Amino acid sequence: MKFELTILGCGSAVPTVQRNSAAQVLNVQGRLFLIDCGEGTQQQLRRFKVPYTRINHVFISHLHGDHFFGLAGLLSSFSLQGRRADLHVYADERLQGIIDFLSRAMHSRPRYPLHFHPIGRDAQLLHEDKALTVHSFPLLHRADAPSSGFLFAERPRPRHVRREMTDAFRVPVAFMHRLKQGEDFVTPDGEVIANERLTTPAPAPRSYAYLTDTLFHPDHAEYCKGVDLLYHEATYGDDLARLARETFHSTAGEAARLALLAGAGRLLLGHFSSRYPDPSCLLEQARLVFPDTRLCEDGAVFELPAARREL
Amino acid sequence: MKFELTILGCGSAVPTVQRNSAAQVLNVQGRLFLIDCGEGTQQQLRRFKVPYTRINHVFISHLHGDHFFGLAGLLSSFSLQGRRADLHVYADERLQGIIDFLSRAMHSRPRYPLHFHPIGRDAQLLHEDKALTVHSFPLLHRADAPSSGFLFAERPRPRHVRREMTDAFRVPVAFMHRLKQGEDFVTPDGEVIANERLTTPAPAPRSYAYLTDTLFHPDHAEYCKGVDLLYHEATYGDDLARLARETFHSTAGEAARLALLAGAGRLLLGHFSSRYPDPSCLLEQARLVFPDTRLCEDGAVFELPAARREL
Repeated sequence: MKFELTILGCGSAVPTVQRNSAAQVLNVQGRLFLIDCGEGTQQQLRRFKVPYTRINHVFISHLHGDHFFGLAGLLSSFSLQGRRADLHVYADERLQGIIDFLSRAMHSRPRYPLHFHPIGRDAQLLHEDKALTVHSFPLLHRADAPSSGFLFAERPRPRHVRREMTDAFRVPVAFMHRLKQGEDFVTPDGEVIANERLTTPAPAPRSYAYLTDTLFHPDHAEYCKGVDLLYHEATYGDDLARLARETFHSTAGEAARLALLAGAGRLLLGHFSSRYPDPSCLLEQARLVFPDTRLCEDGAVFELPAARREL
Repeated sequence: MKFELTILGCGSAVPTVQRNSAAQVLNVQGRLFLIDCGEGTQQQLRRFKVPYTRINHVFISHLHGDHFFGLAGLLSSFSLQGRRADLHVYADERLQGIIDFLSRAMHSRPRYPLHFHPIGRDAQLLHEDKALTVHSFPLLHRADAPSSGFLFAERPRPRHVRREMTDAFRVPVAFMHRLKQGEDFVTPDGEVIANERLTTPAPAPRSYAYLTDTLFHPDHAEYCKGVDLLYHEATYGDDLARLARETFHSTAGEAARLALLAGAGRLLLGHFSSRYPDPSCLLEQARLVFPDTRLCEDGAVFELPAARREL
């Protein structure tokens, strides 16, 4: 039951040799979600041995090239490799126009069902299945390239039945579904058996939030309260706060403040300006505010283990 | 006086970890020419330390993604890095429409003069300057993505004056220009001094031809007769000649036949199908026909030294 994030690129506007353009893959219980798709993403997927043909959902934060210039190549490779499965792309609605225009100009349509889903400026549910929900929410970036954050949240899973206890209390099979949902059991004699005696908690649902490119704003914390893992862009150090504001980006300290406000479990920093060959100064700045902070690097994997919920 | 080719990517339709999509840089006497620009080209330019801001001319063979999906990112990075110099792109005219549409959708125009030059279906002169000429010529690829080959040919350079001889024969300074062009000198007494006594030959002009993606056709040799360095796609081995024909590509043996027909100095093979993690079998097949054949690999550099012409 994986919940694992692989960083494919953590660079910013101009990629460097160390850091490719923005892209990540989140693996939630075997479902692969691609988040942003900068130029070279398909190469990074191969380099880091991600089974990328299983990606069925792609989320694009905004229409700056370092976040989507790799999409055309990925869509094309899927066709060439005989993909048949549906692919869902969630993005600014202009992206559909771009891909359509390109397909027409190249006389080449994807050979699999490709579905575009426009992301609006209000928070919205983009995707849900049995395992998780994905919401988008508005960030604060340039007006001509409005940016969206994403929250990936596992659904609560059913509690585990303690077979020896349900046998002892003769809980009928027909009641098991309700038992797993947390209901108490009432015996034919009217005795109430507390659910906690008959079950153990399921692993706590895990969550991941992705916030790039954006100015810092405390309201953003409302969209990712209590998130386990928070990725927040930290394009600049705190000494360049003014440049960050001018370019609609955040500093490392601001990323940490957002993590603190959200009550996040762990903070990941990325989208580093190419002026930081070694971004460890950004880590130091963030840790002053939010100690459990890590730096992204291309190929890094961050896993959230399926910890048991406290009894 | 460099004449140096750097391979940025020698893969085919789908890039692999070892081989990026098609792109090369030719350095002719310090002028940098980019030939094709598959996804990830800007990253490869940085990886192989090419001073790519000096690229002023880009030649795109045809509109398949593995030959131009890196162009949007490169154009964008030029803007972000403050480029002011003119950039010339030579390509199928549809490429201008694609870049224009993308710019409009992204509300982002290049901040430097960007000139598109359509490549026609007849052989034509695309570019010339004091050092060289660049011609395009038609290849045989899919009808919806017609492909062009390119020939880069240095202009003949003036002969070198042998100062001790011109002093001895009292050749006037005003005559030096004609002397460098190969004229004999006539003394005031009417004596004819052969040019060969007064000058040494200039280095022979060097040339490079790039042929991808294409079916083999003997006529293609006419466009690159006597070329020093010939790059010819060799997507498949000779055992897959039928697949090569079906997909409008060439085999290694066919590439070698073209080199032989053209009287090329050296043959480079590239555009290898991803089915060849090690393409050395293609090298063996080609060398049976044309011994001086080399395999491309990403990052490889092939230099043509400025050899003196035979006396």
